[in-house]
Amino acid sequence: MEAAGNKQEVSGVKDEVREDVLKRLNYIDGHLAGVRRMIEEGKYCPDILKQSFAVRRAIEKMEAIILEGHLHTCVIDGVKNGREEQMVQEMLELYTLANR
Amino acid sequence: MEAAGNKQEVSGVKDEVREDVLKRLNYIDGHLAGVRRMIEEGKYCPDILKQSFAVRRAIEKMEAIILEGHLHTCVIDGVKNGREEQMVQEMLELYTLANR
Amino acid sequence: MEAAGNKQEVSGVKDEVREDVLKRLNYIDGHLAGVRRMIEEGKYCPDILKQSFAVRRAIEKMEAIILEGHLHTCVIDGVKNGREEQMVQEMLELYTLANR
Amino acid sequence: MEAAGNKQEVSGVKDEVREDVLKRLNYIDGHLAGVRRMIEEGKYCPDILKQSFAVRRAIEKMEAIILEGHLHTCVIDGVKNGREEQMVQEMLELYTLANR
Repeated sequence: MEAAGNKQEVSGVKDEVREDVLKRLNYIDGHLAGVRRMIEEGKYCPDILKQSFAVRRAIEKMEAIILEGHLHTCVIDGVKNGREEQMVQEMLELYTLANR
Repeated sequence: MEAAGNKQEVSGVKDEVREDVLKRLNYIDGHLAGVRRMIEEGKYCPDILKQSFAVRRAIEKMEAIILEGHLHTCVIDGVKNGREEQMVQEMLELYTLANR
Repeated sequence: MEAAGNKQEVSGVKDEVREDVLKRLNYIDGHLAGVRRMIEEGKYCPDILKQSFAVRRAIEKMEAIILEGHLHTCVIDGVKNGREEQMVQEMLELYTLANR
Repeated sequence: MEAAGNKQEVSGVKDEVREDVLKRLNYIDGHLAGVRRMIEEGKYCPDILKQSFAVRRAIEKMEAIILEGHLHTCVIDGVKNGREEQMVQEMLELYTLANR
């Protein structure tokens, strides 16, 4: 039980960035609610699309922060503890998936 | 007043696709709530990132549907009614902004 | 023969932009040759990658110029001549394919 | 001289992947020459664009292979030799630049 809790701490979003990430998620939620409002109110489609593009960019920025924390902790630890091949494959997968 | 209401109908997300778009937005909201839960529960960062990538792809799909409706209505109308240069510039702007 | 030649003129890259597009293609060729040289000379991988990213951005810029010419000519003509559905589908396909 | 040669080996595209990377570069050169031919012959713009998109995807695939070699060698070495912060920043920079 203790061990499991501890493992979570290590592998999840680091405490130092979690607050920032959740704050960004709040902003993204609000921005997306704004897109919904624009659709419901019949706003001009290109204006809706521009806001939707901005939401995606905000999500990308949040992802970069999660990734930075992950590199600083799990990846560094993994490489130092003999799981380098796993770390390399994971990074390549994320790099490829990040943009489809 | 009538005219304004009518103009909204023309320029906003078409009725035929609005329901689909709002349904997708509900799905995106739920998916994003799932990402938040994963962060709060300390899930493994690469798993969080993969879900966040999927959210962006769902948003892109929604955007394509909004765009399709816009092309079918406003752009076609605009080209036929002498606003072709405006339509071309708008499409180029969306094309460029769509991926930054 | 005449008709075919004429059709080519209409459907291909417009004369007004062709020179610009070919000039950009020359630049892209040279840039790509630079990437090859960096690989052969054993340059640092991140520096090679940054140049390769720049090549892709130059290709994207060239594509935007080809697209602009296409919208101004073929798409406008198509919409005005009853091929609007074909034009819409073509634009959606390009929009989707442009980023995979 | 020896040292410089040795440093090149370490920092550049690894011997094991260099041949593959250069072969891909040849393919990309040929593909790009095909795009030029299509432009010069007045081919239909959307067909030109689709080939240009394919060139970019081939470049991205080449980049992924260069990156994989870099992760396996320089990044692993860097992390193990106390330059982890530099490696993390470099990876974040590449991740961000890769798609603008």
